[in-house]
Amino acid sequence: MRYATVMAEGQQFWGAMRGDDFAALSPDFPHWPSLRHVIAAGGLPSLQAAAQTAPISHAAGSFTYLPPIPAPEKIICVGVNFPDRNAEYKDGSDLPKYMSLFPRFARSFTGHGQSLIRPPENHTLDYEGEVAIVIGTGGRRIAAQDAYAHIAALTLANEGTIRDWVRHAKFNVTQGKNWDSSGALGPWIVPFSDAAQLDQASISTRVNGELRQHDHLARMMFPIRQQIAYISTFTTLVPGDIIITGTPTGAGARFDPPRYLVPGDVVEIEVPGIGTLRNTVEDEQC
Amino acid sequence: MRYATVMAEGQQFWGAMRGDDFAALSPDFPHWPSLRHVIAAGGLPSLQAAAQTAPISHAAGSFTYLPPIPAPEKIICVGVNFPDRNAEYKDGSDLPKYMSLFPRFARSFTGHGQSLIRPPENHTLDYEGEVAIVIGTGGRRIAAQDAYAHIAALTLANEGTIRDWVRHAKFNVTQGKNWDSSGALGPWIVPFSDAAQLDQASISTRVNGELRQHDHLARMMFPIRQQIAYISTFTTLVPGDIIITGTPTGAGARFDPPRYLVPGDVVEIEVPGIGTLRNTVEDEQC
Repeated sequence: MRYATVMAEGQQFWGAMRGDDFAALSPDFPHWPSLRHVIAAGGLPSLQAAAQTAPISHAAGSFTYLPPIPAPEKIICVGVNFPDRNAEYKDGSDLPKYMSLFPRFARSFTGHGQSLIRPPENHTLDYEGEVAIVIGTGGRRIAAQDAYAHIAALTLANEGTIRDWVRHAKFNVTQGKNWDSSGALGPWIVPFSDAAQLDQASISTRVNGELRQHDHLARMMFPIRQQIAYISTFTTLVPGDIIITGTPTGAGARFDPPRYLVPGDVVEIEVPGIGTLRNTVEDEQC
Repeated sequence: MRYATVMAEGQQFWGAMRGDDFAALSPDFPHWPSLRHVIAAGGLPSLQAAAQTAPISHAAGSFTYLPPIPAPEKIICVGVNFPDRNAEYKDGSDLPKYMSLFPRFARSFTGHGQSLIRPPENHTLDYEGEVAIVIGTGGRRIAAQDAYAHIAALTLANEGTIRDWVRHAKFNVTQGKNWDSSGALGPWIVPFSDAAQLDQASISTRVNGELRQHDHLARMMFPIRQQIAYISTFTTLVPGDIIITGTPTGAGARFDPPRYLVPGDVVEIEVPGIGTLRNTVEDEQC
């Protein structure tokens, strides 16, 4: 099952993917205005039958994708989470004891198939392919061994970054990580039911067909179970919250000279079993 | 005029303060479910007459304060924004070229008169008194000279921090700044109509009556006009967004030995013309 949020004829729908076509379910479930509400109600499993039988309401090409959870309470990203990437920083530091975390605002992400926006102020737009988890059952101080039971679904993130602005400030990457529509989430969510969906997953990022990032989630320095445990130590996780779990080595900034994204580039992030998040790049129209 | 959001008998109201009493206005304006909606509609000025004549619905003591804007889209904090505070870092760095920014989640703040929560994991709970601005008219790439026209109202923040956790990660202060109910916002919002409300304001923080922080907003390294201009370069500001503008020197961490908050402490943040945000401290009940 794959559940998406789309815009068609100026209206927002959520529903199920049937191949490349879309079957709107939201008109039949008016008590759930968004996939976040479905997840908060624990409703994903109950949709399975409807998702398989609902008629196609919008054929491929007649709708645009939004981020599958359009307005989560929180989006938290994990930085520098693969061993080679820590080494890339070449600052002589040992493996860190704690993970680096930063929030992103929902408006810094666009949907699958939309353009990542390169702003006129700075052209160091860079890609970061990542798996994103969607919290189902909220909680505080969730134990690592229970963490997977709190995940409702998986999706993909292009945690797009204006690289020069990440280092504007002495601390904090906020302003490099929050440019409007600099990243993408989607294409859809896939219900999470089996630890292997994460533990055995590999992730690949391609730019114009060239493989730039490839790694296995099992190699994370801070595994996803530990991320949920650590984050929920200080903040209550609620249904629909998104954790973007870290990117492998190979972002454009790591090449010499750097290979930043330019208008017309096509970035694809693929995780077998979840899908492929595909975005083009364009210059902002100011 | 002072507008607050309160809980009484299990229900949420917004309305006007009359002395220490509260006059609910929300039942008369059902099309505005929250002060964020009032602000988005540009409705604050039109409430003035109602605020002066509405009967007291809840006498002091019969309601509790919530943060005045309970669910803003974004809360962005400015770090290290007074010259002495930059010097306190004693890392030999010159004045920074760009401001340091970090988001906080709404649930990291409680309301006026409520307790700041010291968690069992770490006892380095610290205060930071700050002025917070509430965006009225949204925008992107707002020019500094136009910035004040985008402010609807002012309030106060205790940008409470678990100091040890601020330095957990190599970058980013996220996890020290986002403990549930570690800070406070309020008590109310005051409409912003005159530049002097900010430009001539002084701010004081007292702990158990002892003055710990005192400074003038005019001494900020990154003035509020510049904050709005810089932040709106990368993200679209929308009505109800909150910018927490920076704290003067004198947080508990800067004493030798540090003077962190302990249960029973009373923290007051005062800005003449806005009010006094007062919170006690208590240990979390786990």
